[in-house]
Amino acid sequence: MRGLLLLAACAASVPAIANEGMWAFDNFPATVVRQSFGADITPAWLDHVRLSTLRLTNCTASFVSREGLILTNHHCIESCLAELSSKEKSLLEFGFQALARKDEARCPAQHADVLVGTENITDAVLKAESGLDDAAANVARKKRLTALEQACEQASTRAKSGKLECQSVWLYQGGQYFLYKYKRYSDLRLVFAPEADIASFGGDPDNFQFPRWSLDFSILRAYADNKPAQTPNYLQIDFAGPTANQLVFVSGDPGSTARLQTRSQLEFDRDVSLPVTLLRASELRGRYIQFGKNNVGDERIALAPLNSLQNGIKVRRKELDALNDDAFLEQKSKAEQALRAVANISGPDPWQEIATASSRERGLYLPYIFIENEAGFSSALFRDARILLRAADERLKPNKDRLREFTDAELPHIQHDLLAQVPVYPEFEQLTLSFSLERMREWLGPDYPLVRTLMGKESPDALATRLIAETQMNDASYRKRLWMGGKTAVDASRDPMIILARSIDAEARAIRRQYEDEVQAPIAMAAEKIAAARFKVYGTNMYPDAAFTPRLNYGTVQGWEEYGTSVPPFTYLERAFERATGATPFKIPESWMHVKAQLDMHTPFCISTDNDIVGGNSGSPLIDVDGKIVGLMFDGNIHSIAGRYWFNPKNNRAIAVHPAIIREALDKVYGAKELLIELQQP
Amino acid sequence: MRGLLLLAACAASVPAIANEGMWAFDNFPATVVRQSFGADITPAWLDHVRLSTLRLTNCTASFVSREGLILTNHHCIESCLAELSSKEKSLLEFGFQALARKDEARCPAQHADVLVGTENITDAVLKAESGLDDAAANVARKKRLTALEQACEQASTRAKSGKLECQSVWLYQGGQYFLYKYKRYSDLRLVFAPEADIASFGGDPDNFQFPRWSLDFSILRAYADNKPAQTPNYLQIDFAGPTANQLVFVSGDPGSTARLQTRSQLEFDRDVSLPVTLLRASELRGRYIQFGKNNVGDERIALAPLNSLQNGIKVRRKELDALNDDAFLEQKSKAEQALRAVANISGPDPWQEIATASSRERGLYLPYIFIENEAGFSSALFRDARILLRAADERLKPNKDRLREFTDAELPHIQHDLLAQVPVYPEFEQLTLSFSLERMREWLGPDYPLVRTLMGKESPDALATRLIAETQMNDASYRKRLWMGGKTAVDASRDPMIILARSIDAEARAIRRQYEDEVQAPIAMAAEKIAAARFKVYGTNMYPDAAFTPRLNYGTVQGWEEYGTSVPPFTYLERAFERATGATPFKIPESWMHVKAQLDMHTPFCISTDNDIVGGNSGSPLIDVDGKIVGLMFDGNIHSIAGRYWFNPKNNRAIAVHPAIIREALDKVYGAKELLIELQQP
Repeated sequence: MRGLLLLAACAASVPAIANEGMWAFDNFPATVVRQSFGADITPAWLDHVRLSTLRLTNCTASFVSREGLILTNHHCIESCLAELSSKEKSLLEFGFQALARKDEARCPAQHADVLVGTENITDAVLKAESGLDDAAANVARKKRLTALEQACEQASTRAKSGKLECQSVWLYQGGQYFLYKYKRYSDLRLVFAPEADIASFGGDPDNFQFPRWSLDFSILRAYADNKPAQTPNYLQIDFAGPTANQLVFVSGDPGSTARLQTRSQLEFDRDVSLPVTLLRASELRGRYIQFGKNNVGDERIALAPLNSLQNGIKVRRKELDALNDDAFLEQKSKAEQALRAVANISGPDPWQEIATASSRERGLYLPYIFIENEAGFSSALFRDARILLRAADERLKPNKDRLREFTDAELPHIQHDLLAQVPVYPEFEQLTLSFSLERMREWLGPDYPLVRTLMGKESPDALATRLIAETQMNDASYRKRLWMGGKTAVDASRDPMIILARSIDAEARAIRRQYEDEVQAPIAMAAEKIAAARFKVYGTNMYPDAAFTPRLNYGTVQGWEEYGTSVPPFTYLERAFERATGATPFKIPESWMHVKAQLDMHTPFCISTDNDIVGGNSGSPLIDVDGKIVGLMFDGNIHSIAGRYWFNPKNNRAIAVHPAIIREALDKVYGAKELLIELQQP
Repeated sequence: MRGLLLLAACAASVPAIANEGMWAFDNFPATVVRQSFGADITPAWLDHVRLSTLRLTNCTASFVSREGLILTNHHCIESCLAELSSKEKSLLEFGFQALARKDEARCPAQHADVLVGTENITDAVLKAESGLDDAAANVARKKRLTALEQACEQASTRAKSGKLECQSVWLYQGGQYFLYKYKRYSDLRLVFAPEADIASFGGDPDNFQFPRWSLDFSILRAYADNKPAQTPNYLQIDFAGPTANQLVFVSGDPGSTARLQTRSQLEFDRDVSLPVTLLRASELRGRYIQFGKNNVGDERIALAPLNSLQNGIKVRRKELDALNDDAFLEQKSKAEQALRAVANISGPDPWQEIATASSRERGLYLPYIFIENEAGFSSALFRDARILLRAADERLKPNKDRLREFTDAELPHIQHDLLAQVPVYPEFEQLTLSFSLERMREWLGPDYPLVRTLMGKESPDALATRLIAETQMNDASYRKRLWMGGKTAVDASRDPMIILARSIDAEARAIRRQYEDEVQAPIAMAAEKIAAARFKVYGTNMYPDAAFTPRLNYGTVQGWEEYGTSVPPFTYLERAFERATGATPFKIPESWMHVKAQLDMHTPFCISTDNDIVGGNSGSPLIDVDGKIVGLMFDGNIHSIAGRYWFNPKNNRAIAVHPAIIREALDKVYGAKELLIELQQP
């Protein structure tokens, strides 16, 4: 279900084969599609689809009516549902249905971006870093990107388009830099969500599996000036859905792939980052589950974090499997040698430079993730405290000299998130903070100076308990006071979370700087060299690695062969009832059981296609050649996870909710007649 | 602390270099020791040391007085301490001290074996399997081993030596088969154990670390006929301990190494068994820890299982690191090619045969571990039910046709363990069973037929709750009734655990048979071929892989270099007090704080040596050339874990408790004057 949620961010590129490829809209291989399928994908078609597609915080969505209705996955708005819930009333569990527009409920921290323009800034960036050593170039590049983003945003506020979000994008491993310009919708309201039991029917056991029966959809509406947004660019839903082998497209924001990372980078994942992440996540999973057994309220608190965690575990587990394939790594080495042999790269070998930096990363990784990346301080309250502390310092600096997450472009979003009233549960914060402190002590060792300073006289658990009990970070008005009061207010604060963040900040910044200088900087420079070589040899007939930016790909409605058995591309409602056990995650909600007799058991439920998608594509529309929605992507099959590293056309499959089951549900189960009418308007 | 606890069982062999090697007593390289160190290790010395060394259930120990006193690690008798504890009174936490002999407390399930004789049965075994295909040979081999064991035990009961335990041993990957004959002590009583806080000072964070300050020792006494056993073969403790660089020996039972497993077997570990085990163990760790937060009683229940689990996690994590070293695997391939090139093996290539079987293992592993190996049914009560069920069936068969764990030789031990009164905590059983059922559903998939049968209408948690609530397996008298009643009683039982075990037994046995025929059988046959080739090329100047049988090795008191810094081989008491935080696992108990002023802060605490030891060697005596104990092995450093696959003399170090700290503790902290007198008698 949550398979396609965005997990991280990173980039690379490969020459395209088969239906493979996550293509930028301005480099879509329309000619290939015409040759292979006889379909004519015009620039107008591309513009319309792009302008109808939305990027959410960690997912994709699309406009499906002219009055701002948005279709996405249920699991994409899980945090909105959790934020609108309490221990007593869980929207995640019971679903949500706005009977009238006035009942549509605003998501506290959700927004949606539409890509309205792009600008190639490669030359400006390369010029900024020209002649500098790796570390200096890394700093100069970031400053230039900040400056370009700032100029773009300032220009937009003066233009008639209205204020845009300008974000720089690193494509082809630094072969290209772009400014992407987004129109943002910040007022998104919940219109409809089914119960979790049917939305994620099958739960974690079925996650990344097909055949599948998950009604993983939800409906939001974009508002502007407190009224439904007018959205002339939208995609109509064809509730009949597609046929087998039909040509289909997926528009959306794949989050991260690593298809042309070098072998040494993949070995780093295999040997270090994946095992460390998996071990920590698995233990945390156990803690969440056991915490949930305390009582129904605690089970509700843990539900959304547990879902997200379990999805990550499954993804990482299969990524590790992919990297344990020695033949694949051998092939990677050969491809590198082949490119090296023909590209005539001057100066030091960039693959060797990346290998050296990756080896350095092995030494720096643990302090970096635990101290700077907060793996040692897993707590929303600590995160807020650190943001307040750092923002107070960073805001005093010129925009381009700041840490990149505190630029003028980012500050309004930080403020929005920081001051939002979202429920934080102290007992759950205590769990995550205690866990993370304990593991920091394990992995860095009890004699690591910072560990000794923090936990020299207090156990991790006692420290966590005290911090959570005494901090005021859970009080939005207190956070607002410190945010508005700036450095003076923060410096004066005696809040224990602020004190903690302050006490480790110098060391955390130093570790970050070292990591950036010694790992990121040389990798970025060497990757640019490899990218240039690749362009020289292979031209631009290739797609960049995913970067959580709008992409389009093509494919067909398609099953696959599993151990010699053919897996057909459609599932039907009937089998969901057969598989139901009566207990979550295999429970069919009462709302469905009540009307079971009225339901058409032959309604198609889910669809398998061979489109090339990954995490971030959750909520993407599956589109036919006429630009109509014939499915809603929400997952991939188990083989799709290896897609982070390479696309296997034989068995990598994307999974969508069939529109017919959405109609059946809205009509017969939920009686959402008005909504259905709006969705069916031409 | 618990680093050297036995974890599993398996075997292989390599040509020896440096101080490497876990030598059988009858093939100890005395000549090499004489040449290198000028020390004369005589057959009498070897016999005395062997007869003074004991094998516990999962550890080593030694006699240290003529009246049966036994020295071993605290962590080796953790289960005894737990079994003698309750939720209210934890011997693990508070320690134990018998003020008089009558207070010495019998461990319900501990026994100790002394190796009194060996017999080479290689020819008889090879003859039994001669001319058969792999699967048939595998069966014939087991039958022959059972028959030989049985004959040996029967002969011993008629001999004046008294009844012996006869166990067959597979050495050099099947290059040799032996019968090992043990005298068993079944009545072991607890004499002294310090508090867990000092015994495992540093806890999991310090496990497999050095420098170190863990007082990981305990004292038992062997009884025979309800009186202290007379043990003329014992090792006297030299409380002064050793000096740096001194020649030292370790006698004990290393559990399992895999130094000459083939590359494909190591890849199976790396790709399948280690990741699966680590993910499951890490989640269970989180569940245990969170369970322990319920209240002090639950924390006590979880303590011993948590310690054991965390030790396993650290071991497996570092084993995975060792196997992620591509250069090491490459070297392994080269060694295989070199042996293949000179050995002229006739018939199919045995390395390829093992690779084929390992590949088959990838497909069978999950059903095998979950259904047959009980990873899907983690519950002491289920285990008892299955033993009752299977024993009832197996006892009706001729001895040699039974599953090997139900031979006549094993039945008395099974009965002893089954009928022992040890505390089982239903709430904890519920946790482990619920966890294991849920993970079985995850890994085998919800549509796996057996999963569907068991959990088609009940959640894993609900099923576990019902089984634990309704079973009578927690009642020793009920278990006794079924055991004594045999098949009739078991068949008539309506106990839900018996019903569960019965319902899956046919499938579990089928999977086991398939696993034995298709994985174990071809690997065993191919491994015999490789072993024969190795003997031919390298002779017998090599040691077999560890097999949890008595071994001896030599080394020196030695530190090592870590990142260019020298780690000295001794630690001292003073630093333990400096490192103490006041909170477990860095808490020094009150008993010590009270007498701090009287303690000699320069007392040596722990010792590092370059002996080649692994899990199972916990509790082994560290012996000087005069046969005196100069240390008590309890762990290895972090590099020692890679010792499963190869011995690195540069940094693989064994860790011992220094005898001086034992004396200081018994004398000044615990006032155990009588005990000290007995330990100091010549």
